[in-house]
Order: sequence, then C-alpha cells, then structure tokens
Amino acid sequence: MVIGVQEATTPDLWLEHLHKAGKALSASRPTAVNLQVGVQKMIEVGLQLANQGHHSFHSWTSQLLDAANQFHREDEILCERIGAHGAALLPDGACILTHCNAGALATGGMGTALSVIYSAFQNGNPVTVLADETRPLLQGARLTCWELSRAGIPVTLQCDSAAASALASGNVHAVVVGSDRIARNGDVANKIGTYGLAVLAHHHDVPFYVAAPTTTVDLNCPTGATIPIEERGAEEILGFGNTVSAPGEVPVRNPAFDVTPAALVTAIITEHGVLHAPSEEKLLAQAETKEG
Amino acid sequence: MVIGVQEATTPDLWLEHLHKAGKALSASRPTAVNLQVGVQKMIEVGLQLANQGHHSFHSWTSQLLDAANQFHREDEILCERIGAHGAALLPDGACILTHCNAGALATGGMGTALSVIYSAFQNGNPVTVLADETRPLLQGARLTCWELSRAGIPVTLQCDSAAASALASGNVHAVVVGSDRIARNGDVANKIGTYGLAVLAHHHDVPFYVAAPTTTVDLNCPTGATIPIEERGAEEILGFGNTVSAPGEVPVRNPAFDVTPAALVTAIITEHGVLHAPSEEKLLAQAETKEG
Repeated sequence: MVIGVQEATTPDLWLEHLHKAGKALSASRPTAVNLQVGVQKMIEVGLQLANQGHHSFHSWTSQLLDAANQFHREDEILCERIGAHGAALLPDGACILTHCNAGALATGGMGTALSVIYSAFQNGNPVTVLADETRPLLQGARLTCWELSRAGIPVTLQCDSAAASALASGNVHAVVVGSDRIARNGDVANKIGTYGLAVLAHHHDVPFYVAAPTTTVDLNCPTGATIPIEERGAEEILGFGNTVSAPGEVPVRNPAFDVTPAALVTAIITEHGVLHAPSEEKLLAQAETKEG
Repeated sequence: MVIGVQEATTPDLWLEHLHKAGKALSASRPTAVNLQVGVQKMIEVGLQLANQGHHSFHSWTSQLLDAANQFHREDEILCERIGAHGAALLPDGACILTHCNAGALATGGMGTALSVIYSAFQNGNPVTVLADETRPLLQGARLTCWELSRAGIPVTLQCDSAAASALASGNVHAVVVGSDRIARNGDVANKIGTYGLAVLAHHHDVPFYVAAPTTTVDLNCPTGATIPIEERGAEEILGFGNTVSAPGEVPVRNPAFDVTPAALVTAIITEHGVLHAPSEEKLLAQAETKEG
C-alpha cells in the first residue's frame, strides 16, 4: 500500500513515500504518458525542496500541494486552448463522433476531445455528438454521455460497432478523440477501438482529429510500436456487473489501447495550434517552440 | 398472441392461424430473408393441403410438421455444403475472425460461417478463432464461444473494437461471417459491425468471406440500400442485465444490422460453391443453376 507524503515523520521518509507513490501512480496506467509527466514533475518539486535543506520540512507537503494545484491550473488552460483551436475546425452544426471519454471527467480541465466540442458549443455552433459506448468499460456511455447531457449538448449513444454505418450514412462530419501517448513520428495511442475508427474515417473521407496537450507527445518513443499497450483482465469481457456473459473458461484478448499510424490522423490539436498531417519533423518543431 | 395451427378446430381457422403465425414470425426479424423464405414455404404447403380438400383436415398439422422437418434437414445439408466449400479457402492453421453467431445455435445445421470453421477443423486443419463479443446482445460471447469451446476448437474472445488491432497485427488470416440478407448486386446485410470489419479487412488485405445459403440472396432487393434495417430498443445499450450503464435519458442509435457493399466482399460461400468478387451477374447465374 502506498502511504501519502503527509504521513512521513522525517525528510528521508517523505522522499521515500514520494517515490513510492510516484511509482504506483505511473504503473497504474503504463500507456498514458501525461500521468508520468505529472508524476515526474511532482518528484522534481520534492527533490528541489529537499535540496533547499531540511529546515523547511514542515512545509514540504503544502508546497508540493501548491505545485500540484499550479500544474492542475496549467492543465485547465491547456484544455481551453486545445478547445479553442479545435473548435475552429468544425463546420457549423457538425455531428462529431467520439470514443471513450476525453472530457472534464478524464482531465484537469474541460477535456481534450470534449473541450473541442464544449468550445464549439459555447461559440454558438449547434454541434451534436455521437458517442461510442466504448467497451469494455463503457466510458462513452457512463462518462461522455453524462457530461455532455449535463452541459446541454445533444449526444446520442451507440455501440462501438455501429460507428461504421454511422460514418457510411454521411451524417458524421468529424471524428475527435483524445490520446494517451503520441510517438515522435505522430503515431497515436488511445483507447482500444480508436485505430478502427481512424481506418473507417479515412475510408469515408471524414477528418480524424486527435486532441491532446503537447505533454502527450513522448519524444522518447520513436514510433507507435514502442508504446507499451496495457493488457487488462479477462473479467472485464466475461461478464458485466453480476451478469455472466461468456463461458468462464474462454481465453480473452483485452488490450486497453491501440495505435493509430500518423498517416491516418488528419490533424493533432494541441494547446499551440493545429498540426495538420502530423510528422516527426512537425512534432519536433513544435516541441522546440514550446521550450523556446 | 399467435395460436398454433394445432389448436384450430376447422380448416378455415387452421389457415387463419397459419397466416397469423407466419406474419408474426416474419415481423420478428425484418432484416433476415431466410426466415421469410421458410415461412412462405410453410404457407404454400398449408395452401396445397387445403386445395386437396377438407377430408384430410385431421392430418394437416402432421403433414405441415413433416414438411418443416424436411426443410430443416435440407438446411442441415446446405450448411454442410457451405462448410465444405468454405473450408477449402482457409490456409493451414488459419486464425479466423468472426462476428456474431452464424453457427449451430443460429441455423438448422452446423451454421454458415461456423460451418466453414467446423469443416476445416474436422478435416484436420488446426484453425483457431477470434470471436467478437458482438454488442449489444453479445451473441459472440454467449453463443459462438460456447459452441466452439464445446467442439474443442480454440477460440479467443475480444471486444468488437479490438478487431482493428488484431487485424493490424497480421495474425488474422480471414474474416468469415454469415448474412441475414444478400441483395441482388451482392451487398450483404449482417449483424451491426460487419461492415466495419469488411472495411478493416480490406485495409489490411485480409480476405472477407460471407457464408450463406442461396436462400439468403433476395433477388427482389436490387441493392443493400433497399434492405430494411431493424432498429432495436435503447434498453439494450443503456444497461446490461440489472446494471445501468448510461444516463437513462440519453438518446440511443441501435441499428441491429449494417450493409457491406459487394466490393468489400472477397467471396460469398454458398451451398453451390465459392462466388469470388460477387456481382449481380454472378448471383443471377447461380440462381438459374439452382433452379435448373
């Protein structure tokens, strides 16, 4: 069990708890990189505090919390900027297909993919949303439908496998999704099913947008093939709540994420703007701008 | 409520019950055409019996049952033939992706898509199967996994949205599905999600096979656009058993089927053989052979 830093009675124990908590949080979602960026940032803050000397130990926890809150506020601003850049891409009255939840329930701010939708709606664009339920954990049904309904944005729920016929109908004008990690070459890891949507969007000539802060771009991952994909438990697919839905002995394949090649991504929307036809060159240029 | 013909006390009531039962059965699955073919056949048998005179009324029900059993036996033979033709298409040790249940639990015989797999397995081909769970009603999880496991054929269950990454992995050698109705031009209606699989199979250069008896070909439907698509209730997606999984007020899109254009179908496997690159010309030629 991980113990919070606030329980530590000495500076050494405080740092030990900080590292342990960071490790546990990072391991909880191996595919997502933002989480690891956040954890790394907090560990750096902790080490800086320790370097300043043990005399201020009594205030380390509150200083760490201040830094975390600051990080959270920055995240809110990133989300707003992503929303503003993305909203400009949507035609008036667009129907947007989204997958999983990349909204206020999954990020520090108003979301990434959903921030684009919130922003368009707030600008007076009468957008509508088609939400994939997103098996196995139904984040689309449970979270996306809930938060969009609450915001008064018209949302219709469908099974993941119904996305193809919706795209074929011509009534979907854009697919907008979030991302857990973007490789240096623009390959995008996101919730299982995203890659299939990208292929379908391409087949139907519908733009496929990925909305994510630049912290999602992992320059240490050359391509999507090097992004670790979390494989989750069989129980998520063998049943549902207390209802058994498959023979218990059947083997299950349950990757939680998949990788969409950059070539299928119309644009990546970050806090800095819209990166059409993403590539290593463009992502590196943007990373330099960010640091400059 | 529909009353069975066996309850009828006069020839006129018997015919009335027959028509009512036929109407109710046909209306239960508007997309499937085989069911309507079967119902039509039974009504014709009933009318023939009536035309022969009322003196034999006491035996009409048992004669109708004999005709139904004969139809069932013919269905078993069709399934076997489909299986034999389809099995020849599968490379040794192929991994086959299938969707929904087109097996012994859904047909008179050993199935259509699954008959291909059963036949290959019985011929000594060590095939394996990847079964889409098939939301919302989970026929893949509940039925396909059950019947294949029972037959000793290795089957792995996955979410529908995981099919894309499985195809991208290169480990799937064929997609084999059934069909509820095939239009005259070769467009295929089948369980929702089938069309998406066809696009994905095409994108990954994996053959996409549709296994169905020629009774599935509806020459009265010029194209897939004229096939009625059953829209089912929201409750199938808003919850699962007793577990609520989405806000109750959210609108739901729940088409039970979709249409795959003939251009995405590598071959249609019928009891007569394998129809590569199906077209109106080829389907009409096959229909003539059948009648000849």
